[in-house]
Amino acid sequence: MRNIKLTLEYDGADFHGFQRQSRLRTVQGDLESCFSRLLGETIKIIGAGRTDAGVHALGQVANFHTTRPIAIAKLPGVLNASLPQDIQVQRCEDAPLDFHARRCALSRTYRYRVIERLAPSPLLGRHALILPPRLDVAAMAAAAAPLLGRHDFRAFQASGSETMTTERTMMRLDCHRTSDTVDITAEADGFLYHMVRIIVSALLRVGRGALAPEALSRALASGRRLPKSGPAPACGLCLLRVSYD
Amino acid sequence: MRNIKLTLEYDGADFHGFQRQSRLRTVQGDLESCFSRLLGETIKIIGAGRTDAGVHALGQVANFHTTRPIAIAKLPGVLNASLPQDIQVQRCEDAPLDFHARRCALSRTYRYRVIERLAPSPLLGRHALILPPRLDVAAMAAAAAPLLGRHDFRAFQASGSETMTTERTMMRLDCHRTSDTVDITAEADGFLYHMVRIIVSALLRVGRGALAPEALSRALASGRRLPKSGPAPACGLCLLRVSYD
Repeated sequence: MRNIKLTLEYDGADFHGFQRQSRLRTVQGDLESCFSRLLGETIKIIGAGRTDAGVHALGQVANFHTTRPIAIAKLPGVLNASLPQDIQVQRCEDAPLDFHARRCALSRTYRYRVIERLAPSPLLGRHALILPPRLDVAAMAAAAAPLLGRHDFRAFQASGSETMTTERTMMRLDCHRTSDTVDITAEADGFLYHMVRIIVSALLRVGRGALAPEALSRALASGRRLPKSGPAPACGLCLLRVSYD
Repeated sequence: MRNIKLTLEYDGADFHGFQRQSRLRTVQGDLESCFSRLLGETIKIIGAGRTDAGVHALGQVANFHTTRPIAIAKLPGVLNASLPQDIQVQRCEDAPLDFHARRCALSRTYRYRVIERLAPSPLLGRHALILPPRLDVAAMAAAAAPLLGRHDFRAFQASGSETMTTERTMMRLDCHRTSDTVDITAEADGFLYHMVRIIVSALLRVGRGALAPEALSRALASGRRLPKSGPAPACGLCLLRVSYD
C-alpha cells in the first residue's frame, strides 16, 4: 500500500465545488473516476480544503492510497493526460501511510483578487471580481488587522453551518494593491463555511466606504453577523497553498 | 447617421477568430448579430485587427454606422447586457463619419505571454503559453533588436498569404521577464498573416538555445523563412491596443 500526495491546480468555474456530489461535476468526482479507471482499483481522494463551487485552486493538496506499483516521476504526466484541461496535477510525492491531506494540514492560504475596471472583463473576470475603482486599501487593512490571532469567528460563517468549534487562528490577513489589482490574502489553521468570502465581502464594503472599519472587530467581539454579510462571489477566490509540518 | 467607435475585450478561446464566417462562431459575427437585433437595423462591424482563432484582445477597436439615436453613455451597458460573457465592450465613443477602425489605425500592439511551469496550468494556460523553465530573455532581446524599423518581413509571414506589400514598420519588439512570466510585446503599423506568432516562435527557440540569435536578422535580410517556423500557439497572444492619430 502506498499513500500519494498530490498538489492540484484547477479552474473552478465549471465545477460544483471540490466535494463529490451525485450527478454534478466536482473536482473530487473527476479525480476519483479518472484515477480509478487508470489504476484499475477504486480510488478515494482526500482533499485538504473543500473549495466551493466556482472557487479556484493553484495549490490544493490531496492524497490517495493505492496498491499499484507506480513510478512516481511519471505519475503527473500520466494523470494529466487523462484529466480534463481545467484540473491538472502539479506535483506527486510519496507520503507516509498516515498522511491525511485534511487532518495533517497546519494552514490554508487563500487569495481573493479584485480587479478595478469600469466594464466587465472577459479576460480577467474569470479569475477575479471586477469592481469599479477605487477601493480604499488602507481602510481595508485597518479593518482586517483585529481579525489576526485566535478568535471565535462565528460572526463570519454562513448561517446553517455546523462545526464543533468556531474558534480559528488567523495567521495572515493582508490587503495589497498592485496598480488596479487588489489582493486579499488570508491564512488560517482552518476556515468556517464561507468564512473567507464573508470577511472579503465586509472588507470590500469598507473599501468602498459603505462600512466603518471598526464594524469587523465589533462583529468579531459580539459574535453577531454583520447586516448584508453575504459571501463575495466565488470567481475571485483561489486556494493558493496548504501548509504541512 | 452616426459612426460609433468601440473598444472591445474578448477571450478568444471559444471563437474562430475575429472575421465573420458562416456557421462558425466569430467575434464579428457575434457583434453584428447582437447589435443588429438591439438596434433593429443591419449593423456592419469594421475591426482594426483580424485576430486569429484563439487569439485574445484587451483593446481591439471596431466601428459601426447607425441611424439610431443612442445615448452614448448608456451604450456599453446596453450592449454588454446582450453580448456573451467572453466578449464585452470597454468603451464607446462618437467618431467622425469617415473614421475607419482598420484604415485609420497607426499601429497595433500585441503581447505574447509565456509562463514557465513544469506542469500544465488550468488557471494560467488559458491566456498564456506554458513552457518549462527557463528562457534566455537576453538572447531573445538580442535576436529581436534587428527587426526594429522598416523592413520587408516576408520571411515572417505564413505561406500562402497574399498582400500588396510585405514591408512593415516594427516600432517595438520587447522581451521582458517578470518572475516566471516572459512577455514579448510587438508594435507595428501592421502585421502580415501570422507574423507575430512566427516571430514569437523563432524568439522562443532562441530563448531555449535551439536557434542562434542571428538567425532572425539573417532571415529578415534574405527574405527566406526559417526552417520549422510555424506560428506559436494562439492562446498566448493578445491584442493589447490599437493606436490612432
